[in-house]
Amino acid sequence: MNGAESLIRTLVAGGVETCFTNPGTSEMHIVAALDRVTEMRCVLGLFEGVVTGAADGYARMAEKPACTLLHLGPGLANGMANLHNASRAQVPIVNIVGQHATHHLPYDAPLTSDIEAIARPYSKWLRTSSAATQIGCDAAEAIQAARAAPGQIATLIVPADVAWTEGGVVAGPLAIPRAAQPSAESLDRAASMLRTGLPTALLLAGNALYGEGLKAAGRVAAATGATLLSPYPITRLERGAGAPVVQRVPYVPEQAVEFLKAFSQLILVGARPPVSYFAYPNKSSVLTPPGCDIHTLAGPGEDYAGALDALATALPRRRSLTAERTGQPAMPTGEITLPGLATAIGVVLPEGAIVVDEAMTSGRGIMAATIGALPHDWLGNTGGSIGIALPLAVGAAVACPDRRVLCLTADGSGMYTAQALWTMAREGLNVTTVVFSNRAYAVLQWEFLGLGIGAPGPRAADLFDIGRPTLDWVHLAKGMGVPASRATSLDQFAKAMKEGFESDGPTLIEIPL
Amino acid sequence: MNGAESLIRTLVAGGVETCFTNPGTSEMHIVAALDRVTEMRCVLGLFEGVVTGAADGYARMAEKPACTLLHLGPGLANGMANLHNASRAQVPIVNIVGQHATHHLPYDAPLTSDIEAIARPYSKWLRTSSAATQIGCDAAEAIQAARAAPGQIATLIVPADVAWTEGGVVAGPLAIPRAAQPSAESLDRAASMLRTGLPTALLLAGNALYGEGLKAAGRVAAATGATLLSPYPITRLERGAGAPVVQRVPYVPEQAVEFLKAFSQLILVGARPPVSYFAYPNKSSVLTPPGCDIHTLAGPGEDYAGALDALATALPRRRSLTAERTGQPAMPTGEITLPGLATAIGVVLPEGAIVVDEAMTSGRGIMAATIGALPHDWLGNTGGSIGIALPLAVGAAVACPDRRVLCLTADGSGMYTAQALWTMAREGLNVTTVVFSNRAYAVLQWEFLGLGIGAPGPRAADLFDIGRPTLDWVHLAKGMGVPASRATSLDQFAKAMKEGFESDGPTLIEIPL
Repeated sequence: MNGAESLIRTLVAGGVETCFTNPGTSEMHIVAALDRVTEMRCVLGLFEGVVTGAADGYARMAEKPACTLLHLGPGLANGMANLHNASRAQVPIVNIVGQHATHHLPYDAPLTSDIEAIARPYSKWLRTSSAATQIGCDAAEAIQAARAAPGQIATLIVPADVAWTEGGVVAGPLAIPRAAQPSAESLDRAASMLRTGLPTALLLAGNALYGEGLKAAGRVAAATGATLLSPYPITRLERGAGAPVVQRVPYVPEQAVEFLKAFSQLILVGARPPVSYFAYPNKSSVLTPPGCDIHTLAGPGEDYAGALDALATALPRRRSLTAERTGQPAMPTGEITLPGLATAIGVVLPEGAIVVDEAMTSGRGIMAATIGALPHDWLGNTGGSIGIALPLAVGAAVACPDRRVLCLTADGSGMYTAQALWTMAREGLNVTTVVFSNRAYAVLQWEFLGLGIGAPGPRAADLFDIGRPTLDWVHLAKGMGVPASRATSLDQFAKAMKEGFESDGPTLIEIPL
Repeated sequence: MNGAESLIRTLVAGGVETCFTNPGTSEMHIVAALDRVTEMRCVLGLFEGVVTGAADGYARMAEKPACTLLHLGPGLANGMANLHNASRAQVPIVNIVGQHATHHLPYDAPLTSDIEAIARPYSKWLRTSSAATQIGCDAAEAIQAARAAPGQIATLIVPADVAWTEGGVVAGPLAIPRAAQPSAESLDRAASMLRTGLPTALLLAGNALYGEGLKAAGRVAAATGATLLSPYPITRLERGAGAPVVQRVPYVPEQAVEFLKAFSQLILVGARPPVSYFAYPNKSSVLTPPGCDIHTLAGPGEDYAGALDALATALPRRRSLTAERTGQPAMPTGEITLPGLATAIGVVLPEGAIVVDEAMTSGRGIMAATIGALPHDWLGNTGGSIGIALPLAVGAAVACPDRRVLCLTADGSGMYTAQALWTMAREGLNVTTVVFSNRAYAVLQWEFLGLGIGAPGPRAADLFDIGRPTLDWVHLAKGMGVPASRATSLDQFAKAMKEGFESDGPTLIEIPL
């Protein structure tokens, strides 16, 4: 068995059974090994930003890592923006990057680059495998590192000669270290804060926002009246009828400050203290009110769900408050409006849907309109690098073939990684993509106005205008094999969405705004 | 004047008059400054790989740098693969990347990253500007560094507060250091090698492949019978009727070895000793024959054209041999064949055309068919990271509005940065794009077979098959505002190409293979 085969067999043995990839020549022996290890599902992307974003979406839903397989430094570079997002999502990814054969590197061939240097900024674990006999162990360690709480990116660089040399040894899975329990002092402090009766919020992230973690958070809220919050960047939030209500800190700093000023105490579980995305002249980066008492109950490496459960147990037991199923609102009809689109989504959303949200400015009303919709998960952009919605939808759909994915994107953000549509078609993924086409980098129009330097002049305004020429998403989708339509009324939109959810494979709906 | 305005005014004063960009919030004050400094042309890309690839194409043709303007670490990361290519092209780029305001960095907001670490692998010069009063000087130094022979990437990181703070000072242009002349010993050695009468080739790169450099190389060849070669990765090669004949070292290692074994002496001007792109088990990376005497006449930092001129002057004067205008071959008609497509291109190519070539496997016959075409420049992929043809075409067309650009790409390579089509439409660029749609990563099919491990199995073969679903480039182009057609005969192809060259703005022709 060569190194490549021992690599793939070790990954499968460690529960890594999906490989998102765009390979090249230096990875050919690994590709050949994929022929022999059929337990590994291979999903091809036409661009590496699709590959890494899909690995993120997969991990969010599967709660375990997929692996990537990327081609040398440039392939890794193309995947890096979505690795940036993943590094903020607290998800596990085993990021595999090919390298030239060791003896080829000194020749500085055209594709040579310092892959470790490129990988380092977004890798919590990083290793170049040194021998075919070692790569099994390296892969097992990479899985272990990726799965260390709360989940992180482990990059394994594989020189071609390590892959092709005989002597590979499959390594068994290593123990995943249990997340640490927060100290008794930390728990006591949180309980004391909650018992003061002061207005208190729990700011949750990672697996505190779904499953057992969110249930425990709901018990804490019920016992104390505390408010549950998520940061604006959401990895995965379980919501809809029956789920504890979690409010999202707004994106716009003024709105966030206004929203957070209600709380004099903030307990962090997996989240960092809320700060604005960007700095603005003469504005504070900090969003919490002065004097807000902030306590980290559990941080990265600690057991978020366990901490919340322990906290809930220490508090009086009361019936959790959960969102109620909205009385089915009438399906909105007529002219397209943002509130109408949001209502329609709330009405049509099927049970168990996974909503991927990067609609930015156009989509800001959709969470409010879906709070009482059928139970669903919500995945957002965690690192602020736009162009992740379509890839995330690929990964989520691969992880959850029995669920429906609704992907909300915009023309601006969608164009970064539109190649994901092709992978959706190729894999027959059940993704309904909605493109809000406002023909603008609308968020930048807003941000410019927020700087206090007046309105943009014609040349600045032109850089926010992506309507010259108009992007035609129906053509783009069809060009990549995805059936598509344009909705110019709410009726058309609702009909197209329903058809999308009821048919197999991907569809796309463009909404000109 | 704030820092942002002093930055832009310094760039313009230093001859940097084109900005390829995809800006974000942290760059808004620079965008606002662009409103006030109308001498800087702004070209928007929907994805940063378009931005950096266009800056490369611009530099190849303008022989001076454009600047980029990229959004934080992720924007830079998206542009990195084409910066990899540019780093191998010996071209100047002033690469400007926004950063959070200095006081915002400690909060680790979602978009925070170590931008210097991300930029370092591909930046020969790298600085984070520290103050509004300094950024003018920083920009002037960045231009100087970018223009140092033979041209390199200089990255200037601009914190938002440096941009928005008052006190900016415009800096005048700094002297561009003259390229060093090779030593007399080096020149003597080259001349002696040429006088031996042994079979000798000059391997040329950078500006030795066009203009005065190539003319001097032609004189050397005429005087001595030496053969002129270019590496397979070509930054810019002047060719066609009237130009000295330069042969390209083949991509396929076996072919390159066969080709180079004719030469017992090799003189390098701007080029490195030829090596294979990739390593293969039991094959050498070195492409030259054993015992080949290799001498570097001029390396990076030295004056390639001056060295060749000095060498030619030291040799007897004979009339240069240049390519002759091919007797106009008949326009091929009928069924699509690769030789037919190549011949058609040779017949139709207008004088002064710029050919951008990333057609990979399908395009390998086109250079031979255009050797006697009307004079033109040829731009290739220099770093092996595919996805540069469309962006390069954007940059070349912006640099040379009076010339016609023929962009040869493939479905696989084109999909990495297809967003460039939108910029072509937006700017009305005279680019005729030909997409060779073979529905495969054909180069990987070849490379797999070259490994000596048999034919790919079904799962490996599936990773090279991008025809499931079929990409429809006519739809894709129309989706981005570029008129497009599909040619299913050589007659249709020739007609569409002629129409493309004779009309204003971009067109695209898909050739199903």
